[in-house]
Amino acid sequence: MKLTVLGCYAATPRSLNNPTSQVLEMKNRLFLIDCGEGTQVQLRKSKIKFSRINHIFISHLHGDHFFGLPGLISTFRLLGRQTELHIYGPKGIKEAITLFLKLGDSWTNYPLLFHELSANEPQVIYGDEKVTVSTIPLEHRIYTNGFLFKERLGERKLNIAAVEGYKIDRCYYQNIKNGKDITLESGKVVSNSELTFDPPAPKSYAFCSDTAFSEAIIPWVCGVDVLYHEATFLESEKKLAPKTKHATAKEAATIAKEANVGKLILGHFSTRYKSLELFKEEAQTIFDNVDLADDGKEFDFS
Amino acid sequence: MKLTVLGCYAATPRSLNNPTSQVLEMKNRLFLIDCGEGTQVQLRKSKIKFSRINHIFISHLHGDHFFGLPGLISTFRLLGRQTELHIYGPKGIKEAITLFLKLGDSWTNYPLLFHELSANEPQVIYGDEKVTVSTIPLEHRIYTNGFLFKERLGERKLNIAAVEGYKIDRCYYQNIKNGKDITLESGKVVSNSELTFDPPAPKSYAFCSDTAFSEAIIPWVCGVDVLYHEATFLESEKKLAPKTKHATAKEAATIAKEANVGKLILGHFSTRYKSLELFKEEAQTIFDNVDLADDGKEFDFS
Repeated sequence: MKLTVLGCYAATPRSLNNPTSQVLEMKNRLFLIDCGEGTQVQLRKSKIKFSRINHIFISHLHGDHFFGLPGLISTFRLLGRQTELHIYGPKGIKEAITLFLKLGDSWTNYPLLFHELSANEPQVIYGDEKVTVSTIPLEHRIYTNGFLFKERLGERKLNIAAVEGYKIDRCYYQNIKNGKDITLESGKVVSNSELTFDPPAPKSYAFCSDTAFSEAIIPWVCGVDVLYHEATFLESEKKLAPKTKHATAKEAATIAKEANVGKLILGHFSTRYKSLELFKEEAQTIFDNVDLADDGKEFDFS
Repeated sequence: MKLTVLGCYAATPRSLNNPTSQVLEMKNRLFLIDCGEGTQVQLRKSKIKFSRINHIFISHLHGDHFFGLPGLISTFRLLGRQTELHIYGPKGIKEAITLFLKLGDSWTNYPLLFHELSANEPQVIYGDEKVTVSTIPLEHRIYTNGFLFKERLGERKLNIAAVEGYKIDRCYYQNIKNGKDITLESGKVVSNSELTFDPPAPKSYAFCSDTAFSEAIIPWVCGVDVLYHEATFLESEKKLAPKTKHATAKEAATIAKEANVGKLILGHFSTRYKSLELFKEEAQTIFDNVDLADDGKEFDFS
């Protein structure tokens, strides 16, 4: 599992501060999360292949999470894309993108499939044989979802020495990896635990931005390996947080602690602060394993 | 008169190639022409004050001329803008911007006034006491206008030595600057030409992008001081030009020559070429006074 932060600043794009966008790599799939203005340039800077992006998740329709999407969709067309592109986002996103493309008489030459969201409870919105994605309802000024990415439990790993020791035919290997016991020709039953090791623990990543401090999300992100939680403000600006439906670094850390997550990554910083280290220091008064997002920064969780 | 090129490349934004946008300063007014993705960051890099932009002209609704506009309008709101913003662009632009703002529940707190264009003949779309702006119908894949910015002829300049020599009272000065002759107390009529100098020649700038080679525009840009004409291709890719409704450097120079303009600036370059100098060399086989646009480049025509 690998996270590339393309942009992690609040509000308006600036020379050195990009609005929200990130790419999560999980089981060799790339998921683009949010798409603020400038995302396609940030993708190029991070040398991420456009053709590997097939699923885009949009948390909400504020400009700093969404205004890069029409351009990215157009660029896919100019690059000759042919494979399906799936967009997951709030109801209205299809109308908006469709109108922009129609006005430019530039509909895509690849299938563009919208999955519009309007539920207020978590729901599974994507699933394949290795990964699932669910929504995390957030509390913001407009309808907003976070997203929970989870690896599925993989198959068990063969203990090669053991299966060879019992001279088990290769044709049974898949059954063994699926967890089955084996009956030898002698009639002896060998339990699966003798023949396999546990699969690697499935990893999970929760993206929660933008949101006010909301204890409701704790059960939904409980025990995730990595929680990205917005921290627009420090406690010194705490009174702005509920008004704008954003959170402070301390509040993000409180969620991380209560949900017992592995690591907390802070992002969506207001540009009013001189040093991002202040966010980390404040969060670490509550929760120890804190890291800071930054534009272009990569996190490897393998 | 001063031109700041914010972006001058065709198609998709890249790390070092911004899509079309430029700022024309004329008689102390700033006019933003086109607004590709990333324009607001380019404005910051060029240190142009957002508050000085009150009029935005959009040539057409392809993404590389337009997808930066929702973000710029949102940023104006976040910066606390209160003064009117006027947007001139093809019919449909109001619906598009309105939808994007509505979806984010973030309507502007300043007056946002749309002037939608649909005429196929040149029309004056802006005028004040010092400047006029007219459309230049272009030939592109979708409805597209260029824009002609013209300074109005200023008042005549007083020949101070002459008016003082005739002991003319100051109360007549404005009449003299307006071109009137003066009758002295003696009854002698002094012609205006004795009392004044010609005003500075009014300057003019024509923006023509995107467009196929179109001789129809020659009379509309005839004699302008500066013509910005797109040159997406070189003659070596001439067969692509009519198909995509773009022009070559040689075609742009042909328009410049036939229209007898003062200077030609080439822009809207395809990123397929290794050197922009090739565009200049090709154009100069037809027309001598050629310059190349580039992102961040400033031209001072005072």
